[in-house]
Parts: sequence; C-alpha cells; structure tokens
Amino acid sequence: MRWVLPEYFQDVLPPEADKLERLRRQLLDVFRLHGYQLVVPPLVEYLDSLLTGAGQDLRLRTFKLVDQLSGRTLGVRADMTPQVARIDAHLLNRQGVSRLCYCGAVAHTLPASLTASREPLQLGAEVYGHAGIEADIEIIRLLAEVLRIAEVPTSRIDLGHVGLFRALVGRAGLDDETVRELFGLLQAKDVPTLSERLAPLDATVRAALLALPRLYGDASVLGEARRVLPDWPDVVAALDELDRIAVALPGLPISVDLADLRGYHYHSGVVFAAYGAHSPSALALGGRYDAVGQAFGRGRPATGFSLDLRELAQRLPAPDLPGAILAPVAGAAGLDDAVRDLRARGEIVVEALPGHEGSWAETGCDRQMIWHDGQWLVVSLEGEGAGHG
Amino acid sequence: MRWVLPEYFQDVLPPEADKLERLRRQLLDVFRLHGYQLVVPPLVEYLDSLLTGAGQDLRLRTFKLVDQLSGRTLGVRADMTPQVARIDAHLLNRQGVSRLCYCGAVAHTLPASLTASREPLQLGAEVYGHAGIEADIEIIRLLAEVLRIAEVPTSRIDLGHVGLFRALVGRAGLDDETVRELFGLLQAKDVPTLSERLAPLDATVRAALLALPRLYGDASVLGEARRVLPDWPDVVAALDELDRIAVALPGLPISVDLADLRGYHYHSGVVFAAYGAHSPSALALGGRYDAVGQAFGRGRPATGFSLDLRELAQRLPAPDLPGAILAPVAGAAGLDDAVRDLRARGEIVVEALPGHEGSWAETGCDRQMIWHDGQWLVVSLEGEGAGHG
Repeated sequence: MRWVLPEYFQDVLPPEADKLERLRRQLLDVFRLHGYQLVVPPLVEYLDSLLTGAGQDLRLRTFKLVDQLSGRTLGVRADMTPQVARIDAHLLNRQGVSRLCYCGAVAHTLPASLTASREPLQLGAEVYGHAGIEADIEIIRLLAEVLRIAEVPTSRIDLGHVGLFRALVGRAGLDDETVRELFGLLQAKDVPTLSERLAPLDATVRAALLALPRLYGDASVLGEARRVLPDWPDVVAALDELDRIAVALPGLPISVDLADLRGYHYHSGVVFAAYGAHSPSALALGGRYDAVGQAFGRGRPATGFSLDLRELAQRLPAPDLPGAILAPVAGAAGLDDAVRDLRARGEIVVEALPGHEGSWAETGCDRQMIWHDGQWLVVSLEGEGAGHG
Repeated sequence: MRWVLPEYFQDVLPPEADKLERLRRQLLDVFRLHGYQLVVPPLVEYLDSLLTGAGQDLRLRTFKLVDQLSGRTLGVRADMTPQVARIDAHLLNRQGVSRLCYCGAVAHTLPASLTASREPLQLGAEVYGHAGIEADIEIIRLLAEVLRIAEVPTSRIDLGHVGLFRALVGRAGLDDETVRELFGLLQAKDVPTLSERLAPLDATVRAALLALPRLYGDASVLGEARRVLPDWPDVVAALDELDRIAVALPGLPISVDLADLRGYHYHSGVVFAAYGAHSPSALALGGRYDAVGQAFGRGRPATGFSLDLRELAQRLPAPDLPGAILAPVAGAAGLDDAVRDLRARGEIVVEALPGHEGSWAETGCDRQMIWHDGQWLVVSLEGEGAGHG
C-alpha cells in the first residue's frame, strides 16, 4: 500500500482543514491587530544557519539535504524561531522594537512525543529589541488571547526562569557536562538521583537546586522561593521579574514551576508553558532568548512564543456550517448572474456536472437553484437529483 | 556570512508577506464559494508515493531524505497534485464528483527557470470524477477568476491537447525513447531537427507532427487543424473538445497552441497555460490527468490547475494600508477597553514599551491614543514620542 503515509505525518481532510484555515486566519489577524508583522522565512536553509544558537536537540530533529547548486548541507527547518531572529537581526535592521509573527510547516526527523506530529504547523509571535519585562508581559497576554480564540480551556500558564538555574550552577563552577546532567534531572524531577549528584557541591547551591523541584504551584511559591533560595542579586532579580509578571496578569491562570527549564540552551530569562485542561503536554511554549540574534551579527533582546496550530485546531469543535447550493448545468439564461450574486452573499454554489444525479449530497449540497416564475429561486434539495436543470 | 540563503530560496518580509497572505485568503475563499474543499497533504511522504504516476522531471526535482523510523526513502513534496489525487482516490472514496483545493509550500532541488523560486507556494484546484469537458470548462473559468482577483492582466490562456500527439505517435508505433525525443523537439519548436527525425516516418504522421508547431493563434487555428491533420477519430475528438471549450468561454482571451504539451507524462487530454501580459513564462498550468489516480488503486477522471502564489503576489501593487495607532504603556484607567474597541474596529494598535521614544514610526504608527477630557482619543502622531503616557 504505497499510499500509506510515514508515521507521524498526516493528511488534513475536509472539514478538519477548514478548522485549521479558519483558526490560522483568526490568529494571524489578532497578531496583526497587535502590531505584529507577518514574515515568511524559507522552508529550506543552509544547515549552519538553521542551527545557529540552537542546541543539540534541534540538530537531531532536523532533516538534512544536499544542495545540488552549492554542494553544501541544507536543512528542512525544524523550528522557525531562529529564522525569524535572523530576519530581525539581519534584514529589518530596525533600531527600535520589532514585532514579528509567522505561521508555517516545520518537519521533524523524530516526533517530540508519542502524540506529536512530525510536521507541526508552527505559529508564533516575537518581540525584538526590548529587554524589559513589559515585552514578556505583552507576549504572555497575547498568548492568552490566542488560547481564548482557540477556545482552549487553559488550565494554567506555568512561569519559570532560566536565570535561577544559571545563577546556581554558575556559582558552583560546574563543567558543561555536569550542568547538562543536572538540567536533565531537574526536568525529570528525579530528586533522588539529583540529591546523589549534588552531594559533592557547596551546601547552599545543593540546597537551592534540590529545592527547585518543590517550588511549583500558585504565585505564593515565589514568596517561598525567596525564603529557601540564596539572596544573591541574580536570584533576586529573577524572582522579581516573575513577581512583576504575576502581578501584571491578574486575570490569567498563572502558576509557577521553578524547575521547568525547557529550552535551556536557547532561552535566557523568563520562560513559560501553557497547558490545556485535559492535556499532559504543553500547548504553547515561550520565553526570553536574548542571545539568539548574536550569532547573526546583532544581539537583540527577544521574547516570544510558538505553538502547533494543527494540535490546537484539532481540539476545536466542528463548526456548524451551512450546506451548499446546487446550481444547474451552466447555460441557462441569467444563471451566471444569479450564481455570482449568491456567492457574493457568501453562499457556496456548486455547479452541477451532467450525469452525477444521485450524488449531490456528497458535495455538501442541501439546497438547489430552480427557475420559477421568471426568476432563480433557492429551494431545499428534496430528493436527490430532482428538479434541477 | 552564514545568514545568506541558498540560491533561489527567499524570505518574504513585510509588507510583501501581507500581500501574499491577503491573496491566499482571497483565492481560497473563491475556491470555497465554488464548492472546492480544502485539503492539507503532508510536506514529506514516502518517495514512491510522491512520484506515483509522475515523470522523470519530478523525480529529479524532489529532495530525498531518509526516514529514521522506517529506514525508507522520503521525499519533500515537489508537486502537490499527486498528493491530492491520492487523497481523492484513497481517502475520500466518493462515488460522485470531488472538488478539492490546496495551498502549500513545495521544494525543488533545482529551480524550474532562472526566475523561478525553489520554494513555490503551490495553490491549486482539482475536479475528480467527471470525464466530460464540462469539468475542464469549469476549471478554466475558475482559473480566469483567480487571475482576475490577482489583478493579472492576462494576455492569453493557451489551450493544447495531449491526445493529438498521442494519436499521431501511437499510429506510427514509435518506441518510448523516440517519442520522448519528438516531444522535446516539439516543445522547443525546433522544426529543422524535427523534420530530420521524422524523415523515416509515414507521410501522414510526418506531415501532421510537422504541422503542430505552426498550429497556434486564435481559435480559428482549430479550423486549420481540421484541414491539415488526419481525420482519425481520436484526432477529431480532441479537436472537438478544444472547439467546445473555446465556444463555452467567449469572454476569455483563449488561444490555441497545439504543440504545447507540457506535462505530457502526467496529462492525458486538454492542457492549458495562462500567461500574464509581460511575462514569457506561464503563470498557471493545468489540464486533464485521468491516469494519476490509477496508481493509488482507483482510476478517476481528473482535471485542475496550479500556480505559484509567491510569483502571483509579487506582481500585486503594494496595498495602501492605514497606519497603526500607538497606545501608551499599559496601566492607565480604561486603556485596555479603549484598545480592545479600536482593534475590534479593525485598527492596528501597538502598545508602547518604555524607552523607545523616537522610533515609533518604525513600527508603522501614524496616530496615537491620548487621554483628553475624560476619554481616550486617537490623534495624529505629531513629533515622535510626544504626548504619550
């Protein structure tokens, strides 16, 4: 069966494709009305460029190709965020703030999880050029608006801060490999192994790193964090940022998870993840990644989020769409004008092709045009194939 | 400079990306109102499946990948038409007519021409399940509507018919290699070499094949073709089809080119190509390809067209867009509601981030919100950075 698709790649068929298209438009419209300008980076780039500033994980997830024109290695993009950072840093060259948004297919060599697609439709928004927490607040509010439009019952938006982990491991003077291992253990919340690995460390750092997995819950966690974490300036600054965000977003289901460090190799400050009501995996991820632009020759502060539009659209209920209208085989007097008028009013008009009587319902028709008393009328499609022509 | 893109791949930046998005929506809406249902096939499939029913040309243009999950060869789609045929044949399984449309990125190893992109944004519409010429007429009318919306001054829509060439070489009993060579010479309108290669053939076939490159121009060419081509039933049937199309589309700039056989390995009947006023290469290609579905286990008649939306959008004049409105830094009383109201009326409202006075024009703002006499007013943005907050 050669028409079987590779695992974790899917067709989107009608009416699912309509849901996807509709949500795509709604979300790009919201971005536009907030001043985010659309950019369309290419599907394929030089691999070096795609992986600039990104970690090992993205390297493994990127499909490689050979460019027949240059002999160089190309990649199919697995993440559009570095592409958009490149556009801000190199092409737009603005002095002030840039707000950019995008929506496009990315491909992954391996799925991110057992329920993920290898072809997410990545949609995202980014603010470049503002280092202050105001940009993070704007981005999280925009994400909440996106989730509202997508009718996702958001259970929570988890806040974290990469700066806390950085501050702690930085003081301990650990090598990169150990840092990566500790990072993995924190993500897994594997406290027993973490405890074992931290044994040789300074007591303050050890106690702080061991506390992180416990520091999750509502915003009151930030008060507890101030008590149990050392009061070093970089630790206090990170907690202050999280406090300001929580205060600025009173209507949102903000929670805190100080061990959540996803995208550590990429992010540099506040990070966040939005979860739906009945979903164990995050629907949207985001945060600050001030370092990414540097690799493109222009280090600009940056914060943003992205999500898989396919996953979001799947959760939408099927829209209750009106049926289509069947028009007779072309040629009758005034028919073209009548059809044009109906379409101008937003009606779907399907033109009959001869010889298919009995299968109009397949095309979604529930009404038909008939010539009656000198005019074209739209009447219910009673009995397949009756009355048209 | 690692941010340079591979040749023939481009970023689409604002405001070009807006033109692309706007045209995409307009054209998908037209398809929807004509009863064409949107499908979204995957970017990556098994190579066998992507190349089913397609010719050598598509094989060379398709990027190959290895699937880490199955060890099989994957391809990045270079053409969505076979994917949509697969969906009709295998997934929808309708008895009557299916009308499907699509819009997605495809990637080419080599550009189709010196001015082409290696990443066309392919947009197309297809009718499955109707063998009659009525479907071809519907498709050509739909293409004309697309070109009207895209504001393309269409110089002509060339009609051809693969059945004529098939009938002539079929009678001559030529081997595949000779047929391919003759096909190439006809496409190039290389009459001297064609004449030489045809020397050994039967006089009727030779005269007819040599006549094809002369048979182009307005619909009167069809009359001449009846005089100079043999009156074999398959030749007459092909000319009858072209006559019926020309008669059914009186308002369109239809012309005839009987040597134009693009997509011979793929198409089976009427073929057509639309040309813009100042462009030597075709803007849209289409025609009948009844055989494609067979490879997917269900041979269904099919006709449709596709085009590169990037190329079409580039030709659109830049839209005259209203500027954005600058809102003060968040926090003032009633500001959120006032901003929401403006956006609900379609205004782009950009929220100020502190510290960027002097660069608001970069973000496209030409007006600002000010608090005056107990209400929020929108006034002209006179003098950068003045009056907000």
